[in-house]
Amino acid sequence: MAENPLLDIEDIVRGSLTDEDSSSLIEKISQLEPEEIALVLEAMPVEQRVSTWLELHPDDQVAALTYMRVDARENIFKQLDEQQLRTLVEGMEVDDLIELLDELPQRIYNYACSRLDASQRSWLETALTYDDDQCGRYADHDLLIINKNAKVRDGIRMFRKLADDAEYQDALFVIDRTGRYAGLVHATALLGQPSHLPVENFLDKEAPVVTGEMELEQGSDIVSRSGYTALAVVDADDKLLGRLSIGEALENVRRALESQFMHTAGLDEEEDLFAPVFDSAKRRALWLGINLLTAFLAAWTIGLFEATLQQVVALAVLMPIVASMGGIAGSQTLTLMIRGLALEQITPQTYMMLFRKELGVGAINGVLWALVIAVITYFWFGDWIIGGVIGLAIVINIIAAAISGVFIPIWLEKLDIDPALSGSVILTTVTDVVGFFAFLGLGSLFLLA
Amino acid sequence: MAENPLLDIEDIVRGSLTDEDSSSLIEKISQLEPEEIALVLEAMPVEQRVSTWLELHPDDQVAALTYMRVDARENIFKQLDEQQLRTLVEGMEVDDLIELLDELPQRIYNYACSRLDASQRSWLETALTYDDDQCGRYADHDLLIINKNAKVRDGIRMFRKLADDAEYQDALFVIDRTGRYAGLVHATALLGQPSHLPVENFLDKEAPVVTGEMELEQGSDIVSRSGYTALAVVDADDKLLGRLSIGEALENVRRALESQFMHTAGLDEEEDLFAPVFDSAKRRALWLGINLLTAFLAAWTIGLFEATLQQVVALAVLMPIVASMGGIAGSQTLTLMIRGLALEQITPQTYMMLFRKELGVGAINGVLWALVIAVITYFWFGDWIIGGVIGLAIVINIIAAAISGVFIPIWLEKLDIDPALSGSVILTTVTDVVGFFAFLGLGSLFLLA
Repeated sequence: MAENPLLDIEDIVRGSLTDEDSSSLIEKISQLEPEEIALVLEAMPVEQRVSTWLELHPDDQVAALTYMRVDARENIFKQLDEQQLRTLVEGMEVDDLIELLDELPQRIYNYACSRLDASQRSWLETALTYDDDQCGRYADHDLLIINKNAKVRDGIRMFRKLADDAEYQDALFVIDRTGRYAGLVHATALLGQPSHLPVENFLDKEAPVVTGEMELEQGSDIVSRSGYTALAVVDADDKLLGRLSIGEALENVRRALESQFMHTAGLDEEEDLFAPVFDSAKRRALWLGINLLTAFLAAWTIGLFEATLQQVVALAVLMPIVASMGGIAGSQTLTLMIRGLALEQITPQTYMMLFRKELGVGAINGVLWALVIAVITYFWFGDWIIGGVIGLAIVINIIAAAISGVFIPIWLEKLDIDPALSGSVILTTVTDVVGFFAFLGLGSLFLLA
Repeated sequence: MAENPLLDIEDIVRGSLTDEDSSSLIEKISQLEPEEIALVLEAMPVEQRVSTWLELHPDDQVAALTYMRVDARENIFKQLDEQQLRTLVEGMEVDDLIELLDELPQRIYNYACSRLDASQRSWLETALTYDDDQCGRYADHDLLIINKNAKVRDGIRMFRKLADDAEYQDALFVIDRTGRYAGLVHATALLGQPSHLPVENFLDKEAPVVTGEMELEQGSDIVSRSGYTALAVVDADDKLLGRLSIGEALENVRRALESQFMHTAGLDEEEDLFAPVFDSAKRRALWLGINLLTAFLAAWTIGLFEATLQQVVALAVLMPIVASMGGIAGSQTLTLMIRGLALEQITPQTYMMLFRKELGVGAINGVLWALVIAVITYFWFGDWIIGGVIGLAIVINIIAAAISGVFIPIWLEKLDIDPALSGSVILTTVTDVVGFFAFLGLGSLFLLA
């Protein structure tokens, strides 16, 4: 029984970074699945990543690259010389080339194209008619295609010719004479059948299909829910473009969810753990700059009340509490909304229901924590009016947070902007401004002599 | 060719909430996959969810429940009367019962157990010897088990008896006389083989195995990277407990990533979009309370400088900028670390490398934005000293953010606390306190007359 490969990943990463001799390291890495090799390489600082990668078998080199994050992969390409890049692309399959083409230097890409034969070039051209987030671009050509009027024995021959490492190949993709997709024939359906019958007799027409225009995430959801190990990807004329397998679907689902998570901090999903310092600083600077604008907006709001602050300095001490409670309450609502929108569970019919619910939640927590804060404030500053002012400001801000948390993501989604990326920056701007304005405004009303 | 089911989900949700007649709605929903039915039901307010669910076919009722979030499911159970609950569990398979048992009232669970036969009960008992995050508890019993010395014809008979809706059933799980798992036999391997040969001749011993003790997430990763559609789950004596399929693995991967995302806002992954207001408020109150403690800590830091604030009110206006920039920079580092730790890409050997890198990124962005802020501050308040003070405070706080962003998640992981859940609250406490202290402290040093 094969040893469990996953258990070793962390050990391999550890070993790779101590003085273990490199040939035994390479041997261990070579036993891993390509996804795992990619994880191990990403976990290495760039210099060592390149030297380790160079020692891998050419097939593993390419496979690992296709599974790596874009940045981590680019940091390898940057270290390779012209000859190494040429050698890399010489043996490359078209689907790997499609995966890597954005990071390859133009002249290397051209060189790779010049070495393709006519059928491969036509495949590449078809794929490139689709956008880089569409299923058509990534349709996998590693599939068993059979003609409608072929016999059971032809199908069996196809299955038996499969290489050992063929993944999720338990069905034949059946096409008619014009190349139109007609359905699947499962290996299990052919078991024990007379070899002279046409495969058409065993056709599964129920399997859903993925179209080339579909977004990768949508196609992946369809595959993952279908219960099939792979579905056909077809063009607008029902011609078979390739397949989308459950393995790729899983990878796509993982990437989509990971990128949602990274986006909440203004990071790119492709960010390399060991990106060069300057590259990384450049990427993150923009997000800090956007945040700075909103921070100045909040500061400007406070500036409106300079005179009040001068007289009642307790307000300056307490004001971050109001902003912070609003920000937290709002981001809870926002996060729930982002998930609901991503799963398509939120529709115009439920906007108002969700709003009423979140408003209710906000009202309960607003009043509860306002009371707690008012009492603590009284004991700290010995002044019931300050306690009352902060309590009221908290209620106002938590309710503003509920409203923003529901409607900001809905509105961003309508504008086709990713709510995971921009939602929280806009939300905290609202809760900061509303919080400071309500607190200092109420303070000016009730506390100035 | 079957219609694409996914395209209809949002439409169905929309339709379900307008006055469309309910029988046509039920008909549409019944054509969906169970995962999709669960999504549609979750998207409905509780009352309508229950009435719709009650009209589903009993099989769909159970299947949809197993795919729903715990809270959404619980909100259905709460609306059912004793008789409805009994009817529900009467026809239930053991694996569904295991999935639902935490939410079922004890007496209903006991009733369900009393109706199991001896073999089902022993299955249930074995499953319950494993924790609720271990693979052993969820091993799927819907698999084809064959004896080592059975013949090819027996294997073929098994495949042909499969129901149409059997998912990911392209291999037989082979056991020896004592029930020990020996390997897989793929359907494709039996194609065209003489029917009198023993299946043992076609054994795939290379497939990794999942152990009952493994965490669900780890087992799911193994299945998803293996390229197999399902792997055997075995106990400590190599006895076959069941299987873990790629479909379940994908669902588990999705849940784990979704919960990481929800945790960053202090939310539970199981939270129902339409949870009753009071339940939802109760759940979220704790997170707000924890945040309040940290907000008071920040306020207390500010309070140390009351005298300074009274004299230089500009400090009160500007101080949220310092805290905010530190919080954003820190959460970028934190998010990158959380992802790296979750993927096991970060080990003690790389702690210092990552720290140096993040420190470098922090230094570059700290100095860059400090200069920008200093200049803006000068134009706003006409005072170079305030500009210098805020610039210096920004540099200090962004560097503190880099240090915290790297070491807080490492330290939480060592304490076995989820960094996605607690990391950001601790991080912003650090950046708030350091930011206010540095800014107001420097202000006291340089600005007081």
